[in-house]
Amino acid sequence: MHEECGVFGIYSHTADTGISNACYYGLFALQHRGQESCGIAVNNDGTITCMKDMGLVGDVFTPETLDKLQGTIAIGHVRYSTTGASTRENAQPLVTHYIKGTISIAHNGNLTNCITLRKELEDKGAIFQTTVDSEVIAYLVAKERSVSPSIEAAVENTMRMIEGGYALLVMSPRKLIAARDPYGLKPLVMGDLNGDTVFASETCALDACGASYVRDVEPGEIVIVDEEGIRSVKTKARRRAGCIFEYIYFARPDSVIDGISVYESRIRAGRLLYEQHPVDADIVIGVPESGLDAALGFSEASGIPYVKGFVKNSYIGRTFIKPSQEQRANAVRIKLNPISSSVKGKRVVMTDDSIVRGTTIANIVKLLRQAGASEVHVRISSPPFLHPCYYGTDVPSTDNLIACRHSIPEICKIIGADSLGYLDVGSLSSMLGVENGEKFYCDACFTGDYPNADTGIDLMEMN
Amino acid sequence: MHEECGVFGIYSHTADTGISNACYYGLFALQHRGQESCGIAVNNDGTITCMKDMGLVGDVFTPETLDKLQGTIAIGHVRYSTTGASTRENAQPLVTHYIKGTISIAHNGNLTNCITLRKELEDKGAIFQTTVDSEVIAYLVAKERSVSPSIEAAVENTMRMIEGGYALLVMSPRKLIAARDPYGLKPLVMGDLNGDTVFASETCALDACGASYVRDVEPGEIVIVDEEGIRSVKTKARRRAGCIFEYIYFARPDSVIDGISVYESRIRAGRLLYEQHPVDADIVIGVPESGLDAALGFSEASGIPYVKGFVKNSYIGRTFIKPSQEQRANAVRIKLNPISSSVKGKRVVMTDDSIVRGTTIANIVKLLRQAGASEVHVRISSPPFLHPCYYGTDVPSTDNLIACRHSIPEICKIIGADSLGYLDVGSLSSMLGVENGEKFYCDACFTGDYPNADTGIDLMEMN
Amino acid sequence: MHEECGVFGIYSHTADTGISNACYYGLFALQHRGQESCGIAVNNDGTITCMKDMGLVGDVFTPETLDKLQGTIAIGHVRYSTTGASTRENAQPLVTHYIKGTISIAHNGNLTNCITLRKELEDKGAIFQTTVDSEVIAYLVAKERSVSPSIEAAVENTMRMIEGGYALLVMSPRKLIAARDPYGLKPLVMGDLNGDTVFASETCALDACGASYVRDVEPGEIVIVDEEGIRSVKTKARRRAGCIFEYIYFARPDSVIDGISVYESRIRAGRLLYEQHPVDADIVIGVPESGLDAALGFSEASGIPYVKGFVKNSYIGRTFIKPSQEQRANAVRIKLNPISSSVKGKRVVMTDDSIVRGTTIANIVKLLRQAGASEVHVRISSPPFLHPCYYGTDVPSTDNLIACRHSIPEICKIIGADSLGYLDVGSLSSMLGVENGEKFYCDACFTGDYPNADTGIDLMEMN
Amino acid sequence: MHEECGVFGIYSHTADTGISNACYYGLFALQHRGQESCGIAVNNDGTITCMKDMGLVGDVFTPETLDKLQGTIAIGHVRYSTTGASTRENAQPLVTHYIKGTISIAHNGNLTNCITLRKELEDKGAIFQTTVDSEVIAYLVAKERSVSPSIEAAVENTMRMIEGGYALLVMSPRKLIAARDPYGLKPLVMGDLNGDTVFASETCALDACGASYVRDVEPGEIVIVDEEGIRSVKTKARRRAGCIFEYIYFARPDSVIDGISVYESRIRAGRLLYEQHPVDADIVIGVPESGLDAALGFSEASGIPYVKGFVKNSYIGRTFIKPSQEQRANAVRIKLNPISSSVKGKRVVMTDDSIVRGTTIANIVKLLRQAGASEVHVRISSPPFLHPCYYGTDVPSTDNLIACRHSIPEICKIIGADSLGYLDVGSLSSMLGVENGEKFYCDACFTGDYPNADTGIDLMEMN
Repeated sequence: MHEECGVFGIYSHTADTGISNACYYGLFALQHRGQESCGIAVNNDGTITCMKDMGLVGDVFTPETLDKLQGTIAIGHVRYSTTGASTRENAQPLVTHYIKGTISIAHNGNLTNCITLRKELEDKGAIFQTTVDSEVIAYLVAKERSVSPSIEAAVENTMRMIEGGYALLVMSPRKLIAARDPYGLKPLVMGDLNGDTVFASETCALDACGASYVRDVEPGEIVIVDEEGIRSVKTKARRRAGCIFEYIYFARPDSVIDGISVYESRIRAGRLLYEQHPVDADIVIGVPESGLDAALGFSEASGIPYVKGFVKNSYIGRTFIKPSQEQRANAVRIKLNPISSSVKGKRVVMTDDSIVRGTTIANIVKLLRQAGASEVHVRISSPPFLHPCYYGTDVPSTDNLIACRHSIPEICKIIGADSLGYLDVGSLSSMLGVENGEKFYCDACFTGDYPNADTGIDLMEMN
Repeated sequence: MHEECGVFGIYSHTADTGISNACYYGLFALQHRGQESCGIAVNNDGTITCMKDMGLVGDVFTPETLDKLQGTIAIGHVRYSTTGASTRENAQPLVTHYIKGTISIAHNGNLTNCITLRKELEDKGAIFQTTVDSEVIAYLVAKERSVSPSIEAAVENTMRMIEGGYALLVMSPRKLIAARDPYGLKPLVMGDLNGDTVFASETCALDACGASYVRDVEPGEIVIVDEEGIRSVKTKARRRAGCIFEYIYFARPDSVIDGISVYESRIRAGRLLYEQHPVDADIVIGVPESGLDAALGFSEASGIPYVKGFVKNSYIGRTFIKPSQEQRANAVRIKLNPISSSVKGKRVVMTDDSIVRGTTIANIVKLLRQAGASEVHVRISSPPFLHPCYYGTDVPSTDNLIACRHSIPEICKIIGADSLGYLDVGSLSSMLGVENGEKFYCDACFTGDYPNADTGIDLMEMN
Repeated sequence: MHEECGVFGIYSHTADTGISNACYYGLFALQHRGQESCGIAVNNDGTITCMKDMGLVGDVFTPETLDKLQGTIAIGHVRYSTTGASTRENAQPLVTHYIKGTISIAHNGNLTNCITLRKELEDKGAIFQTTVDSEVIAYLVAKERSVSPSIEAAVENTMRMIEGGYALLVMSPRKLIAARDPYGLKPLVMGDLNGDTVFASETCALDACGASYVRDVEPGEIVIVDEEGIRSVKTKARRRAGCIFEYIYFARPDSVIDGISVYESRIRAGRLLYEQHPVDADIVIGVPESGLDAALGFSEASGIPYVKGFVKNSYIGRTFIKPSQEQRANAVRIKLNPISSSVKGKRVVMTDDSIVRGTTIANIVKLLRQAGASEVHVRISSPPFLHPCYYGTDVPSTDNLIACRHSIPEICKIIGADSLGYLDVGSLSSMLGVENGEKFYCDACFTGDYPNADTGIDLMEMN
Repeated sequence: MHEECGVFGIYSHTADTGISNACYYGLFALQHRGQESCGIAVNNDGTITCMKDMGLVGDVFTPETLDKLQGTIAIGHVRYSTTGASTRENAQPLVTHYIKGTISIAHNGNLTNCITLRKELEDKGAIFQTTVDSEVIAYLVAKERSVSPSIEAAVENTMRMIEGGYALLVMSPRKLIAARDPYGLKPLVMGDLNGDTVFASETCALDACGASYVRDVEPGEIVIVDEEGIRSVKTKARRRAGCIFEYIYFARPDSVIDGISVYESRIRAGRLLYEQHPVDADIVIGVPESGLDAALGFSEASGIPYVKGFVKNSYIGRTFIKPSQEQRANAVRIKLNPISSSVKGKRVVMTDDSIVRGTTIANIVKLLRQAGASEVHVRISSPPFLHPCYYGTDVPSTDNLIACRHSIPEICKIIGADSLGYLDVGSLSSMLGVENGEKFYCDACFTGDYPNADTGIDLMEMN
């Protein structure tokens, strides 16, 4: 399961020369949101220089390339492909030339009506060189710009046409525009870096470049930054529905999204798991890295000691050579090795963030038993995964989701656990620290309750 | 001075699997037409796979990448940037998706009304991701396709709109289309490779992939190849005006363009040079590589022995580290070293194809004198360079053309020669082996007589 | 502070073809012991193929290169340079040809009499192409081999000449020989992989390649593996003195060295720290990664809750561009970002494994205060660092060791902590889980008590 | 057939900083002597920095790496492997550390007693890390140095022990020493670059770096350059026997070896070919590049016009993908395309420098016939190849030499020529411009007359 993208943007009110460095460090902090390609586009008085390629931020950019990225406005992007093939053409930012000059776009999210919009544009003669939504957005903004008084008005008009979840950065020759979808599905925050204005997918990127947090961009809001300052335009908001999976898995634990600490949510999820699925055990361990925080919460609530159960090999990257079929049994252990002295003879509670296919967790449970665990109780800090995501998360088809085909007792048996407990779907508000009131997040992957189902969009077109 | 591009295309009537190899060898033979980037796009039953990058054919393609380029239609391209920056985005073939599917374009030449056309498209909302003419052509074809019964009709309509010199290959899901501008400015030939149809900028590419020469594509002609066979559409031809510089410098000597051998033309140029500028001397030498053939012709006509005057270092490529200022005097010698035993104490006739700025030839003359030549008589196998080319040749601005600022005697003095003779502009027909009749080539760079000057196009827009 | 190397070796009794893969996964698991260069040498019936280069295991080896490394005996190495420059020449294994054939060596450790030995060899005409100790060992083994009945006898003779700490793998055309220094300074274990014999610096490498642990190679022991089986030769052992820093910092927590779990040692260090330096606080956090385990032990002993205090950016590798001077304040935060919600308003105990110069920890303390920590109490799970290591650990010169120049209260002030506690040097046995008896580890870096000080070796020659 | 190496060295009397650049340009000019690996070692006040790798000079060195190669003495090397595998370990210069400091060696040639010498060294405990002769030389010099008053005396002693052909550059902390074998088998010249002393395999390298020719190093001579100036030591010379193949094929035509112009030799070979094997024909052509000069000589002597018969593709390098079996017929044409207009209907004389296996020339003859040549008369500017070379030239085993297994009429038939003529072995002196006197060159590959056959060396050990 993967989040598809992270965005970062900066507008220098002070003609500072360090904006490409700020971008670089911001993208470094967002690397967990996309490891396939990355890019930075810089605007120097109307001239755009864009550097993008397949690979990690640290591999694509060198001191020499950063030096060439001089200017006063910059946007950057890290990408994991959900829609669009994993090719160099699809790397962002997307830089396009149109009647009013040049427009650069960095975009996180998926449009649910992208196919329809693309078809309409093609009917009028448009040609496409990529398979990413961003190119559709670029066309729409370019088209609206010719009938609008300003680029921000064109963006506003475009937002009336596009449906789905998005955090969008648009860089024109003189402006930096940030926009967030009307549901707030995708996160987007604003920061201040010594007087310069910064936007980023997560607050951890603000920390990394030395910016202070100002506020989250509101659902449906457009923020325009230019030499006159910062302005906000509010388009019609819909019911607030921030992606719950940012808290469960995607976002970095040191980030705060819409006022809620990601780390605290995960600790609370662990506590709730104990309340909902208590068990008598000797130790609590988490599956690194994303399962560790819930283990701490579970330990705290239960009083069962938290110990380190596994060592994760931090050097395994893209270039790792996968074991052959006969060595496959060993594959998990290369990445994740149990600490025998911790688990031997122990009744173990093991937390993880989710179960997708079930294969990996089954291997991990097996490893624990081989290492001598007497019991293995699995606790999952999210409800069962049942529905596809149309907003930009890479979820396997429902055929491959174990919870679509099996009951929880069946899954427990398949993964070889002594017991299995999922977080109750009704306690997601509690996980976010809100005890009452109506739902303010999107949990469609668990419930099928898609926030834009009422817009008449045929979500199935996405498949 | 550089030619900008070479194109190669193949349509397999026999579902042969070797088309990417044929492309590879064809492009290898066309490498002299462009060394900055190259690419091959292959159509496999409607699915396009395109591989392109900065670099030489031999560096960009590996056996592994060629293996992935399987299909039944393919087009390829080598590029030297004349318009459009030298960036990866601008590499060709250009693959675009539009309402009727996918269209791939490989293109040699420049449109003289490109800026106007681009502006018109932008007015209607088009966005551009590259700065190459090919993207304008792709838009026009896509737009015309929606109002035309077939892709070939769309190409025909497009040709009514575009002005300039071009050899164009268009690949649709089921067709390969070749088109040549109405003046025949750019060369384009058709060949047969064991029943498959091949197009290439020069006949040397046919030889390299094992194809036999069928015929030149006619000026203004569109050739369509699909499962029904080969068809031809003739658009309104203008006065025939093939680029004279293909014969003088660009094309490979083993190529035959529009029925005229490039090598023979260069030999004839050497003979004419002797007739027009005879001189009493001991030896004739040529500046490698392009000046060698004229030296043979000069020797033959004059009876003065032809000897090797220089050794050219064949390992100097893109990565060569240029000598620093203090070592500069030496720079020419690293690339081109005179053979002292050949020239010492001799009265030398030295032929070259052209003089642009005059700097290089001045250094070469100096080298010869240092090596002991008693006299150096320079003979240039083309007329003086006086006008810009609007059709895709990279000529420096007239400010930098030595012949725009100096008389021939002045140039002779500047380059340090004992005498200097240019080929007479009136003898270009003779050079091509045609003694009478009207002009059938473009010599605008010498005369300012632009073949499409009568179309009302403001050529100056090109600057 | 860095450990210099990891070694891995395998002898296949079954002519299995997977030995290069086993090496690859073993080295992957040892990557934390050396990230500068790596290599694998394979013996195929007397023919050696060696592949080594600068870089990480995952970057140096591809499926293609692994495929070429076929054979029945293999040794591998990961290296961080302590002695010898960081160059490609110095990468290991070292393959040398001598009178009896070919010998390959992979070696972890430093010889304290290397300079003397090298000089003696040079006096007799030896030439050296590298600056690593392994070349001296290769010479000695080659020399002894000519007067010894077997390669193992030559290794035994060599061990009488060399002084210091080493884990050594020697591969001859038909044998794999493992040797450990007489003090057991460097770790070396033996494992079994489906009947094949494996050696590795740490047990985590056995786990990674699917081997089971057999036993540690004993101090001073030579283990010979050939077609006749496994034999052991015991040279005269000295007092047992395994490097204490393997437990404190170098080794992976899932490894077990000489029967003692590394993870358990670190937990015990945390407990001891609380006993020796109790403090009233709200939370305990660790500096990732090596400080986390002690935090768990401290929390367990004190009852103060353990929470996650920092998020470490796992994508920062060798290619990371360091912030410029003006951005430097920010540098720590890019790598290590505090979780504000965890520490804000809290009295924090923070554990780390050691303090070398003090600069990094001072920045981390500062970060915690900026994030709102009301108090910061630093606890170090080792005694103060006071003496150089002559056995292969990269420690800065004593001038740069903060504890050599400042008292503990001064250090506390310099790093900005509210209190500072080091682990008592007298409790290191307890840390290793042994309450009584004589010292069986090397703690020379804390005490100056060098285990081979009595051999008359001038350790100062090492400087 | 390949020459194995080129060497270049420079000693700056003026502490000039440009020595690595001089080396770079010198090696560029010697690239034809070796394309597998290259390297430069620079001595900066006793500190050696060496940069070497597989690849061409232009690929291995960048402005950044050249900048790091600062010093006052430098030696460089280009290598094609004849002995020793084609691996990075075998790249030169070889830098070794020994009792007196550091010694760097760049070496062209083969020792005929290398195996014996190596065995003697191994008997005394020497270990070898490469398979090149240079490592044996380094050992001998190191060993002799300990019993000699100076490095030059050690080199002199070493020359008494080694047998074969060599041009040797030795760099010590304060000296540059050049040595040439007693037969003068390998070429080596001395030059002057603004007061600095330069050595190179060929004069073309002097030209490239701007040095003037001083003289050839004499057979058996040692030239020592240090701060006291230039000194010469003459060891006992043997009968002069410079390699004849330098003139026929290896050397660049602009080089002058031992006072004889390479280009002139080739022209004379062409003239002699006509005298010895006259034929009635329409045109003379040469096989590029090495066959072109003889064609000029043949044309001059016969009066038959010289024309360009082929175009050679200058972009085909190491990365060229070889045609598959079914495309093989085409392989020659990709590299070498006949100019049909030149040869069609013509009786053609075609010169080439040698025939090894006969396969390539058979294909070329076939190409000419396909292009319409009515007759093809092949003339080879060397005698038939019959014997192996023990001095460093890469000649196939005699099994593969067509002239060992077939008579000239048979070869003529095999290659499909109408007639075939080789240069008479008795006219090689004439080729070198010397009409009388005893033989002063080595023609062992044609005659089996090995210049050091009388030294009792078993040349067969070389096989």
